[in-house]
Amino acid sequence: MKKYNVAILGATGAVGTEFLKLIEERNFPFNELRLLASKRSVGKMLTTCGREFVVQEATADSFKDIDIALFAGGSISKEFAPYAVKAGAVVIDNSSTFRMDPEVPLVVPEVNPEAILKHKGIIANPNCSTIIMCMALKPLYDLARIKRIVVSTYQAVSGAGKEGIDELDRQVLQHTRGQEMTAELLPTGSMPKHYPIAFNLIPQIDIFLDNLYTKEEMKMVNETQKIFDDYEMKITATTVRVPVYRSHSESVNIEFEHDLDLREMAAAIDKFPGVQMLDNPAEQKYPMPLYTSDKNDCYVGRLRRDETQPNTFNLWVVGDQIRKGAALNTLQIAEVMIGKGWI
Amino acid sequence: MKKYNVAILGATGAVGTEFLKLIEERNFPFNELRLLASKRSVGKMLTTCGREFVVQEATADSFKDIDIALFAGGSISKEFAPYAVKAGAVVIDNSSTFRMDPEVPLVVPEVNPEAILKHKGIIANPNCSTIIMCMALKPLYDLARIKRIVVSTYQAVSGAGKEGIDELDRQVLQHTRGQEMTAELLPTGSMPKHYPIAFNLIPQIDIFLDNLYTKEEMKMVNETQKIFDDYEMKITATTVRVPVYRSHSESVNIEFEHDLDLREMAAAIDKFPGVQMLDNPAEQKYPMPLYTSDKNDCYVGRLRRDETQPNTFNLWVVGDQIRKGAALNTLQIAEVMIGKGWI
Repeated sequence: MKKYNVAILGATGAVGTEFLKLIEERNFPFNELRLLASKRSVGKMLTTCGREFVVQEATADSFKDIDIALFAGGSISKEFAPYAVKAGAVVIDNSSTFRMDPEVPLVVPEVNPEAILKHKGIIANPNCSTIIMCMALKPLYDLARIKRIVVSTYQAVSGAGKEGIDELDRQVLQHTRGQEMTAELLPTGSMPKHYPIAFNLIPQIDIFLDNLYTKEEMKMVNETQKIFDDYEMKITATTVRVPVYRSHSESVNIEFEHDLDLREMAAAIDKFPGVQMLDNPAEQKYPMPLYTSDKNDCYVGRLRRDETQPNTFNLWVVGDQIRKGAALNTLQIAEVMIGKGWI
Repeated sequence: MKKYNVAILGATGAVGTEFLKLIEERNFPFNELRLLASKRSVGKMLTTCGREFVVQEATADSFKDIDIALFAGGSISKEFAPYAVKAGAVVIDNSSTFRMDPEVPLVVPEVNPEAILKHKGIIANPNCSTIIMCMALKPLYDLARIKRIVVSTYQAVSGAGKEGIDELDRQVLQHTRGQEMTAELLPTGSMPKHYPIAFNLIPQIDIFLDNLYTKEEMKMVNETQKIFDDYEMKITATTVRVPVYRSHSESVNIEFEHDLDLREMAAAIDKFPGVQMLDNPAEQKYPMPLYTSDKNDCYVGRLRRDETQPNTFNLWVVGDQIRKGAALNTLQIAEVMIGKGWI
C-alpha cells in the first residue's frame, strides 16, 4: 500500500494530539510524519505508533515533499496554507478561514465526499457543531428533503481547545476549595469579557455578528447549506457553551417536505455510517456527552414526532467534539482521498 | 394590616427553606407560622424574621386555624391538601398533582392573576421551567398572539430538590479526587437508572410518556396552554438537565401571528413586572445561570429575528428555579390574594 508524507500543523493542541491517537488507531498509511507548531512548542516530543516525533517550528519551508497537510485549526492556518499548497501538499484545514470560500470544498465524508474532487489544494473541515448535526441530518435528508431546522446546542469546552478544558478544570478546583472562580478565555479570547463556565452556561460561542447571531450560529446555518448544497434548507441556531469536557449535544427540531415514519427514520440512521441510534425511553437509553467521549460515532436519541405541525420531528444528537467534530473528520477526508485514489 | 396564619408543608427542603427566606425578605404578613414536614425532620429548628421555629410532623390535624398553606411540593401534597382545605385553609401547591385539574387554577401572578378567583381551596403553582418561559412569553403575547413555540431547556439540579444539589456536589468532589462519580437520584428517583450530572447532560427530566416525550416536556406544553387559556398556542419541548446549581435556562423559538419590532419587544419585556432584558451583544451582556441565582426576576437576552420564516424570533430566558420557578411564585400568589382582598 502506498504511504504518504504527512505534516500536522498545530500538533500540540487538543486536535493535534488527537490526530496522533487516530493515526495510530486507524493505522493511517504514513511514511514521514512531520509535527509542526509555533516556536514555543519546538523540541516537544510526541508519540504515535510506538515512535517518538519531535515538534518542529512551522515555517514557509516546512511542507517540502509533504503529500497531506493536516491543519489542526486556528489563525495559523491562513498563514501557512499557501506555503503547503505551493509545496504540492493537499491541505485539510480545521480552521474557519476557508470554509465559505467557493473554491474550497467543505466536507463531511459521509455526507458529500464527491465535493473533495473539486479541491484546488485546500479542503475545509466544517465547524464541530455543524459536523455533528450533519451526521444526524443526512440519513433523514435522504428520506425527505429538509425544509427548516431549529437547533439549540450544548457545546463542550473542548471546542475552545486544550485551554478551554484547562479553564473548566481550574474553575472546578477553585470551586471545591471555596475560592472565587477565575475566567480567562471563555466565551472567546477575541472579546474582552470572560465568564466562568463551571456550573454555568454561556450563550455566546465566537463573536457576535450584525444580525445579532454569533459567528458559531451562522456557521451552523451557512456551512450546513454548503455541505448539503441546498440553500433552500432553512436553519436557525442558538449555540451555548456548557460545563462538559468534550462532547457536543444538540436539540434539533426538523421540518421535512413530507411525512416520515419513526421506525423508518431510526433504521436509516442506524444504517448510515458513523451514526447510531441510542434511543429507548423505557430503558432510559439516550445519548449523553459523558459517555460519547473518545467514540468515533455520533449518537441519536429522543427521536419523536413534533405534535405541533405536520412532517416535523425532534431529536437529540451527541458526538465527540475533538473526534468527529474535528480530528477524525479531517483524517477521514484524507482516507477517502486515499481509498478512491484521489491523491 | 391583617396578618395570616401560615403553614409550610415540606419546610426543610430546598423550596421550603426558600419560603422562609422570602417570608423575611418580603415582610410577609404572618401571624402564626407552622412548619410541617415528614417524621424524620420533626424537631429541626429553622429561622426566619429573627425567630426560631420548630418543625412539626404533618398530620391530618396540622391545618387547624391556618389561613394559607404553602406546599413545597412532592407526593406528600396529594395526601395533605384535602385536610388543609377541610380545615378552611387555601392551599398553594408546588407539586404537579393538581395542576391540570380543571377545578384548580394554575397561576403565574404576572400572567393570569384573575384565575385565582376560581379556586375551590387549592391553587396550583406551575412547573418551574413553565413559569420561567411564561415570564418571557407574556409581554410578547400581549403584543401578538403566539402560534408556535420550539423550546429546549437547560435545567439546574435544584429542580430535583436539595438531593439534586447534593448529588452534583458529591460528584464534583469525587471527580476532583479522581474517584468514580456515583449517581443515586438523577434523572429521576422513580426510574431505575441513574447517571452522573457533573460534566454531563441528561436529556430526561421526569418519566417518559407514551408519546415519547417526558412528563416535564408535556408539563411545559399543557401548563403553558392552561396558564394562557390558549389551547391553539402550539408548543414542542425538549427538556435537559445540566450541571448548574439553581437557575434554569431556555432557548425559545417563537412564531407570532404577525410581525413585531425588536425594540418594541424589548421595551414590552422591560416594562413587564418580574422580567428584565439583559441583552447587549457588543458588551457581551446576556443572561447566565451563575449570575441569576437568588434573584427574583427572570432575565431575557439573545433576542433576535429568526431569519428562516416570517414573524418568528429566538430568545434566551434564565430564572432562578427555586425562587420564581417555585417558592417565590407560590408566595406571590398569596400576596396577590392578600393585596386584592381575596382572602
